[in-house]
Amino acid sequence: MAGKKYSKKHQVRSYECDQTEKMTLPMLMNVMMEVSGEQSDQLKRGAKEMTDAGLGWIIIQYTFDIKRMPRLQETIEVETQAMKYNKIFTYRNFTAYDQQGEPLVEVQTTFAAIDMTKRKMARITEDLIAPYEAPFVKRLERTPKPEPVDREAASSLPYRVRYFDIDSNRHVNNSKYAEWAINPLGQDFLNTHEMTYANIKFDKEVFYGELIESVYSVKEEEEEVITSHRIESNGILNCEAQFNWKKI
Amino acid sequence: MAGKKYSKKHQVRSYECDQTEKMTLPMLMNVMMEVSGEQSDQLKRGAKEMTDAGLGWIIIQYTFDIKRMPRLQETIEVETQAMKYNKIFTYRNFTAYDQQGEPLVEVQTTFAAIDMTKRKMARITEDLIAPYEAPFVKRLERTPKPEPVDREAASSLPYRVRYFDIDSNRHVNNSKYAEWAINPLGQDFLNTHEMTYANIKFDKEVFYGELIESVYSVKEEEEEVITSHRIESNGILNCEAQFNWKKI
Repeated sequence: MAGKKYSKKHQVRSYECDQTEKMTLPMLMNVMMEVSGEQSDQLKRGAKEMTDAGLGWIIIQYTFDIKRMPRLQETIEVETQAMKYNKIFTYRNFTAYDQQGEPLVEVQTTFAAIDMTKRKMARITEDLIAPYEAPFVKRLERTPKPEPVDREAASSLPYRVRYFDIDSNRHVNNSKYAEWAINPLGQDFLNTHEMTYANIKFDKEVFYGELIESVYSVKEEEEEVITSHRIESNGILNCEAQFNWKKI
Repeated sequence: MAGKKYSKKHQVRSYECDQTEKMTLPMLMNVMMEVSGEQSDQLKRGAKEMTDAGLGWIIIQYTFDIKRMPRLQETIEVETQAMKYNKIFTYRNFTAYDQQGEPLVEVQTTFAAIDMTKRKMARITEDLIAPYEAPFVKRLERTPKPEPVDREAASSLPYRVRYFDIDSNRHVNNSKYAEWAINPLGQDFLNTHEMTYANIKFDKEVFYGELIESVYSVKEEEEEVITSHRIESNGILNCEAQFNWKKI
């Protein structure tokens, strides 16, 4: 038994698509977060109530199983469901469906609550979570780790955190880490490969003006290509990711 | 007498806002273009029909008069209207209204048609433009020029054109030029000033992988601050802009 579902239709806009006319992963992440934010607002556990309680949600990890990315102009339905929680984490799923109700992208996420003044993880209280009606589970989930970067075969590109990377939550928008990770793979690769799986794990947030390095390595396998990524600032790990790709 | 109007409601999302919880200019530009694209689709002069005719629309210039930018969660109505055309240009207005019908942002734009194979401006034919019902005017409009950069007081920041800067039209998305121009002004300036006017004029497009310079100068006046901007690549002008700002 999992918790309440919430869903919303979304028509894919041209500025949400890359040059292959498919929705970008960063934009899908943005739309997903919007949908779960709306559910929270509806259950009176939105940004306002969280701020009043001195708390905020942060994302710890996303994994994506991608049958195909939504296409330009396509209307998708983005569904979210609070799955379960323990004292530290909540687990929430998202599914993007096509108009025939077929799942296109299935996403598992892990959230944690943070105390906004102490900037530390906060215990997830019953009051905070009850309206979602997800079951409490004692045990922590084991989530898959992104395959690590092969340091000996790695390349990297530097990025500076820009003003527009920061959203109305006053943090670097989560989707920007995915942009920084994916971009160095380059146009030739990205126009000839489709993502089938993504695993993005956040460690330490980056701040405005910081210089980050997007480090990556590429592993060619028989059936697919696996790319491994690290976003680092001053040698500190900010985010790790793995993407699996099939040739188009 | 001007041409047909078309409008669409839009709720401002958190990822469309900056840290001051106001919609960003680049995102407003994206939403506007989406609305005029929908009007064109409805009138059977959309991307598909243009491509079939070997043509495409490019934006030459935008000017914005900004009473205030739309706010996080606010539902705005974005209206567009084809105003007039001559042999070379079409003029189209946009207005973003609040829920009381008050205009928040008023925008004038100049478009040109290009021949996609020759990559040259194409003559605007009657057939192309008739469904918009805008009047033909012989005379070219005089549009205001952005105030030029003061070279002696100028600063600059370099940017590399990224994969995600290119949208499904296979060009650098127009809104990216605005991002490149605004970003170097920095967080301290941008969090303490609100834009009241923008004038963005495009010259030569930039391409994937190119290194561009975002050059700017700042002029403090009694009542406002005027910033002037140039996007250049290899010394060639790609885009000029002027923004007027009031202190918050």
